[in-house]
Amino acid sequence: MAQNELPGGDCSPGPGEIMVIGLGPGREEEMTPRARQALARAEVIVGYRTYIDLIASLVAGREVVVTGMTGEVARCREAVARAAAGARVAVISSGDPGVYGMAGLILEVLAGHPRGKEIAVSIIPGVTAATAAAATLGAPLMHDFAVISLSDRLTPWEVIARRLELAAAADFVLVLYNPRSHGRPDHLRRARDIVLQYRQPSTPVGVVRNAGREGEEAWIRDLATFLELPVDMVSTVIIGNSQTRVLDGRLVTPRGYRL
Amino acid sequence: MAQNELPGGDCSPGPGEIMVIGLGPGREEEMTPRARQALARAEVIVGYRTYIDLIASLVAGREVVVTGMTGEVARCREAVARAAAGARVAVISSGDPGVYGMAGLILEVLAGHPRGKEIAVSIIPGVTAATAAAATLGAPLMHDFAVISLSDRLTPWEVIARRLELAAAADFVLVLYNPRSHGRPDHLRRARDIVLQYRQPSTPVGVVRNAGREGEEAWIRDLATFLELPVDMVSTVIIGNSQTRVLDGRLVTPRGYRL
Repeated sequence: MAQNELPGGDCSPGPGEIMVIGLGPGREEEMTPRARQALARAEVIVGYRTYIDLIASLVAGREVVVTGMTGEVARCREAVARAAAGARVAVISSGDPGVYGMAGLILEVLAGHPRGKEIAVSIIPGVTAATAAAATLGAPLMHDFAVISLSDRLTPWEVIARRLELAAAADFVLVLYNPRSHGRPDHLRRARDIVLQYRQPSTPVGVVRNAGREGEEAWIRDLATFLELPVDMVSTVIIGNSQTRVLDGRLVTPRGYRL
Repeated sequence: MAQNELPGGDCSPGPGEIMVIGLGPGREEEMTPRARQALARAEVIVGYRTYIDLIASLVAGREVVVTGMTGEVARCREAVARAAAGARVAVISSGDPGVYGMAGLILEVLAGHPRGKEIAVSIIPGVTAATAAAATLGAPLMHDFAVISLSDRLTPWEVIARRLELAAAADFVLVLYNPRSHGRPDHLRRARDIVLQYRQPSTPVGVVRNAGREGEEAWIRDLATFLELPVDMVSTVIIGNSQTRVLDGRLVTPRGYRL
């Protein structure tokens, strides 16, 4: 701060700070105090519109830099430029910023910036969609699981399909992020068909829309029928392994304790 | 509460409630307000000693039921019995209770209890060790990942080995829970050898001890050398995929954005 108070001239400010913050699923009661404190300290908040809206009351009075969902690179460059100019910048992701969030891209952009090494950076974890959705459904992630994004915007479908196939063969519980969008209406059916080569049609499947935030909806179906559900980009899909069952309306993957 | 205040006789109290609470990695600033509020509402706290100690100041004045690390079934039966008798019971896990925690076993015990359906249950997610460790290391979980426990207490080693092999072949980033203990000093080397069939010896590996809690330590090495590190039961091991690299001392798995 002291540098900014010096009278003008050639004085360039010392580098600032970037805090990459996981907001958690969306409800304020599931955001960690560490994330909340970091937001309170920030001078500039950078994020996708939907996430900014989740925390509107917490960012009041500060400068907000909003970009569209596909403007990730521009958003990170802006955040790094602002930090290099001396600001304390919060970059926000829903869930955990290290799971398909902004943490990696920020570190990549920092590594390519001439003042990147001088900028303090902290990554503040949050409750990720996989475990928020699991908690709503019951306890489907009690055994080994694989997290796979069905988005082929940055990953060839062949890579995604191979991961689905090997993870299904290995009997991992599967957590699918970005399961369906207008640009890829058919990915979820293709994923289902791959998994059906290895699992029974009766394998339980849970779907949660808006996990842990306003408007949350959850369903439990099976591999044969879950495609009927209104799965979209704000949904998380959890496909059980060979041991997963439905107990009193909840999805449970036993760890193997003898009862 | 009213039932308990009635004079004795045959009156049996109405069923209580079970809250399965994720404490997060350990620091109070990373426990969600929802978890904290649930702890505050509980009349009885059930958990493993180490986890109770993490939150000693938050459970003062309430009854605490402590069992050893391997007493999971007894702990869950006690929690359910107490709830069936009318108490508001908190069952605590570090991290997220749905990831190798107590959530699944509680639901299994409830399903087998004559009053199980009458007991209200809520599962309160927390920041899990995988993402707490990832945040400390950088951003290794930006792409698809698999979470695998190396404990063979409840799972045959052959199942674990097959999952390691297929997940390695599928180029998942790997997150290893329970990586080493006195009972299985050699599992981590065997896991490493399986992964080495599919990945370069130079593949980056991160290890975090006590992620997100007092005494946290972190290292970045590679597949060839990480076994030298003091990995133990309170460590989380993250093995990079073919794209993971070390940038300015941080572990990063790029999602594939063009910079």
